[in-house]
Amino acid sequence: MNKKLKEKLIDIEPYIPGEQPKGDGIIKLNTNECPYPPSPRVAEALKKIESGRLNLYPDFVCKELKEIISENYPINPEEIFLGNGSDEVLALCFRAFFNSKKPVLFPDITYSFYTVWAELFGIPYGTVALREDFTLDKEGFFEENGGVVIPNPNAPTSIAAPKSVIEEIIEKNRDSIVIIDEAYVDFSEEGSIAALIHKYDNLVVVQTYSKSRALAGIRFGYAFADKELIAVLEAVRNSFNSYTINTVTRILAEESGKDRGYFEICVNSIKRTRQRLTDGLSDMGFVTCPSGSNFVFTSKPGISGKELFEYLKSKNIYVRHFDKPKISDHLRITVGTDKEIDTLLNEIEKFLHR
Amino acid sequence: MNKKLKEKLIDIEPYIPGEQPKGDGIIKLNTNECPYPPSPRVAEALKKIESGRLNLYPDFVCKELKEIISENYPINPEEIFLGNGSDEVLALCFRAFFNSKKPVLFPDITYSFYTVWAELFGIPYGTVALREDFTLDKEGFFEENGGVVIPNPNAPTSIAAPKSVIEEIIEKNRDSIVIIDEAYVDFSEEGSIAALIHKYDNLVVVQTYSKSRALAGIRFGYAFADKELIAVLEAVRNSFNSYTINTVTRILAEESGKDRGYFEICVNSIKRTRQRLTDGLSDMGFVTCPSGSNFVFTSKPGISGKELFEYLKSKNIYVRHFDKPKISDHLRITVGTDKEIDTLLNEIEKFLHR
Repeated sequence: MNKKLKEKLIDIEPYIPGEQPKGDGIIKLNTNECPYPPSPRVAEALKKIESGRLNLYPDFVCKELKEIISENYPINPEEIFLGNGSDEVLALCFRAFFNSKKPVLFPDITYSFYTVWAELFGIPYGTVALREDFTLDKEGFFEENGGVVIPNPNAPTSIAAPKSVIEEIIEKNRDSIVIIDEAYVDFSEEGSIAALIHKYDNLVVVQTYSKSRALAGIRFGYAFADKELIAVLEAVRNSFNSYTINTVTRILAEESGKDRGYFEICVNSIKRTRQRLTDGLSDMGFVTCPSGSNFVFTSKPGISGKELFEYLKSKNIYVRHFDKPKISDHLRITVGTDKEIDTLLNEIEKFLHR
Repeated sequence: MNKKLKEKLIDIEPYIPGEQPKGDGIIKLNTNECPYPPSPRVAEALKKIESGRLNLYPDFVCKELKEIISENYPINPEEIFLGNGSDEVLALCFRAFFNSKKPVLFPDITYSFYTVWAELFGIPYGTVALREDFTLDKEGFFEENGGVVIPNPNAPTSIAAPKSVIEEIIEKNRDSIVIIDEAYVDFSEEGSIAALIHKYDNLVVVQTYSKSRALAGIRFGYAFADKELIAVLEAVRNSFNSYTINTVTRILAEESGKDRGYFEICVNSIKRTRQRLTDGLSDMGFVTCPSGSNFVFTSKPGISGKELFEYLKSKNIYVRHFDKPKISDHLRITVGTDKEIDTLLNEIEKFLHR
């Protein structure tokens, strides 16, 4: 490739997603997927989809899907934006809402995609250090900024900040858009702040069906915000890719959204197993952050996070390790089934006594 | 919304997609969808998808799908990039390859999304006027530029430029990326220039399953290019949304890709109906561009394109009209089934004699 041609190509460091190992006997606790299948209604709907209609472009409006989501929250359909996974929703939010010379702020330990989107769109950013115990330092977000992004619960720490803290940050930032990324909120006792969009026109709340709805495979996420902000998001989406939600995803998300009962059974089951996992780790001397998520963030004094990660991998158990300052001795472990968690705990015990 | 907040929002004019009317009795010839269902293999595969696996993130690599596509062309899997419809592929190409202060060039009459992507990413652009007969003026693309985008066949004109003309444009632009958007190429006698990616490291060829594969509903498109360019595209994709192809789309695209026989039957049927449509229009005094696409571009001296468009709409027949200079008296008509085309011709005749 010649030099002039090369100069026209973008030069970026991409986000590197977690490993997706394949094969029998693998215990996959590294990407925060739900260990259970989606609602049985999804299975039924899949069999009934008319493939003969797939020649047509998807429904552009997704009215029914928005209505179903709005019924699960006190939100109106015109306050909902839909996307091809919450990653796409967040990416479009960055482009739509962060057009300032001041830095967008997010925690120093957080979802690593935020810096990647900022780099992609040339958005200045800065980080606010978490406290020693990995909780949010709200004052850091009161500085003048070009926008704020906070995942609540945070990842990979798993910790949910109190609603009052989140609201204070939104309140102190009326001149900036504050995005609260609620990918894991259904596993938290704090619950969603979605209803606050009616109080604050600078608030955007993002959620996903990849975790609590067990539908990572169909890619579906959405945002709640004042309808004026939703209109801006839709303009950006229509300037990028008009039809990001395909027909099958729309239909399956509708069915999942209708099945509140199954959803609650899954979430409660994951919360119970999370307690079992936390207790088991505690018995072996691990210190685990109080989790409001479908994963835990844990470490044991004197134990190398990297060594334990490599050991578990050699036993076909995949967890997530971040080779980063402050958290390099921690592991992020997705809450799997009870059986998977028992196998994991058993292997950790073997590691400690090897 | 306060002024400081408003200033941080993006200010753009979005692409406006064609109408998606719903209801019985509508003849939809306005968005270039295939009038036939996708391959029967797609229907079978849909029934067999294990919904219980949709809790997992999609396959990141899509090795098998790339292999299937590579078998339909003399292309290697590592020379293929996959996306959520060819619109997403093109959007990511704009971001990946057009990083120059010189203008990106495309025809003045062409797919209206090109200017929208350029605006979204702040890419300077210029247009090269088509000739009087709507054919490509190749010399216009020999000027120094930041990149070139040409749909071949072009839309909404339907005309396919000879391969030799396209190759000459690529050859004269070794310092810029040349994107050839082949959304409609399967309906053209010229055929794809995909194999030229082995000769030119500045060439990107984009295709879609939305037209000739009758799968607009699943959103699937892809690009062919030198593997160095594909790596850049993947880095951009991974900086935007890691998993843009969902599990169901991957599986259904695989099945469609394997069914070469059904694909050829569909394409040949559309070509036959296109001839019937062109002849019927000609009998009524319309002048129709020689089409290499699954649509035609037609006008009749003395007849207002807008009036005919509105008349057909009132009869529940949707075609596309562009309220733009040079083409405001033309209609773009998708090649539907024979029955749909007969109804259309019949209504046009009534319009002429009203």
